[in-house]
Amino acid sequence: MHRPKLLAFDVFGTVVDWHGTICRHVDALQWHTRSGQQVAGAELAARWRKGYQPAMQRVRSGELGWTRIDDLHRLILDEVLDQMQVADVDEAARRALNLVWHRLDPWPDVVGGLLKLKALAPIVTLSNGNMALLMNMARHAGLPWDAVISAELFKHYKPDPEVYLGVAQLFGLAPADVMLVAAHKDDLAGARACGLQTAYVLRRDEWGAEHPKETSPDPLANVNVGSLHDLAGWMQALPVSSAA
Amino acid sequence: MHRPKLLAFDVFGTVVDWHGTICRHVDALQWHTRSGQQVAGAELAARWRKGYQPAMQRVRSGELGWTRIDDLHRLILDEVLDQMQVADVDEAARRALNLVWHRLDPWPDVVGGLLKLKALAPIVTLSNGNMALLMNMARHAGLPWDAVISAELFKHYKPDPEVYLGVAQLFGLAPADVMLVAAHKDDLAGARACGLQTAYVLRRDEWGAEHPKETSPDPLANVNVGSLHDLAGWMQALPVSSAA
Repeated sequence: MHRPKLLAFDVFGTVVDWHGTICRHVDALQWHTRSGQQVAGAELAARWRKGYQPAMQRVRSGELGWTRIDDLHRLILDEVLDQMQVADVDEAARRALNLVWHRLDPWPDVVGGLLKLKALAPIVTLSNGNMALLMNMARHAGLPWDAVISAELFKHYKPDPEVYLGVAQLFGLAPADVMLVAAHKDDLAGARACGLQTAYVLRRDEWGAEHPKETSPDPLANVNVGSLHDLAGWMQALPVSSAA
Repeated sequence: MHRPKLLAFDVFGTVVDWHGTICRHVDALQWHTRSGQQVAGAELAARWRKGYQPAMQRVRSGELGWTRIDDLHRLILDEVLDQMQVADVDEAARRALNLVWHRLDPWPDVVGGLLKLKALAPIVTLSNGNMALLMNMARHAGLPWDAVISAELFKHYKPDPEVYLGVAQLFGLAPADVMLVAAHKDDLAGARACGLQTAYVLRRDEWGAEHPKETSPDPLANVNVGSLHDLAGWMQALPVSSAA
């Protein structure tokens, strides 16, 4: 095993806390349902995110042409507001809420961990989020990416192989020289099937501290880590590849 | 006139001093011609750069399929070493020298100026350099890009319109909301023809202090500046667009 020459990061859930940020944002809006109950941010966040995989599947199946995550997020949001019978949310308010994905807050270890990792290898995003979303998020959260790479560049959503192979090809690297860093085992499996190295990041609270997710180690990953600091420590101990 | 929502930067000559860097690098190698004269870094740098437009034209005309700048640089380098009758330069030395384009040094105003500009609008590259080259250069020179965008993503070289329209489309912006910042009037003319705003940066010493280039202001540019600090001052005085 040798030190990867490029670290490619999943973003939603791995780098940023979508659930916590959306909860705080929606709770602060103090919206109500048609029957007068306050809208719970945690419920809206979870429903919104649950619509994500099915929405990408509509693109993957060809039912929808290529559609950016911003637009998929908006489609899902309209459905969720309807399901939850949220009252009086006009077009401008929907558009504003949809942009919360551009301003998600990072997990506490992320900025410091990324700075350590950036000293060891280039760090790039490899997210299904669109370019504008990822760039705005980096500016909001102070994420020191060396480059912002999105599934949008390949017109395929992860875990389609085009995305993993695409990032390696774009930087002129062999797949085995690239490591995907992600908190989702299906994403890592997709990367591994293309020959990438993989790092599993345990993010127990991705769906909120009240709903801890299953975070048993991924036995097929090259490394399992609890934080990006741990990943930097692991990287540092690895030999640099001789074939530079 | 309103403040652009995205600043897209030409890189070679505008942001980094290719001539000075290559001069210093080649002079330090102390290579010699077959007749025993020391190879002048300034001559090699100028010849190398002069091969750049004709090489891209070979791609544009279809004579070559899509070819990265790294590979075009290498084709030109081999020709230049031959023309200059440089002796005893093996494959490894050629490969190493070719990577000097990944480690070009910035003009003195660049890092400070970019940090000021980044506070006013997102800053991205829009260069014919390939993604790996631009990312490595940013790491070498400490360029605080919000995203690295290359002609490589559009499989067209500037001044083809696909590149200027491509960056606007990628970030979901109208062309008029994007400003190209460049030290080359043909690049600015290409951007303007696509509806972008343009800023001309005067880089008199781009081809070396001994060969000052013509830097009369570009009357068609929105602004002419002597440094990126000046551009930040001009931007700050502009009203932000009301249609956010």
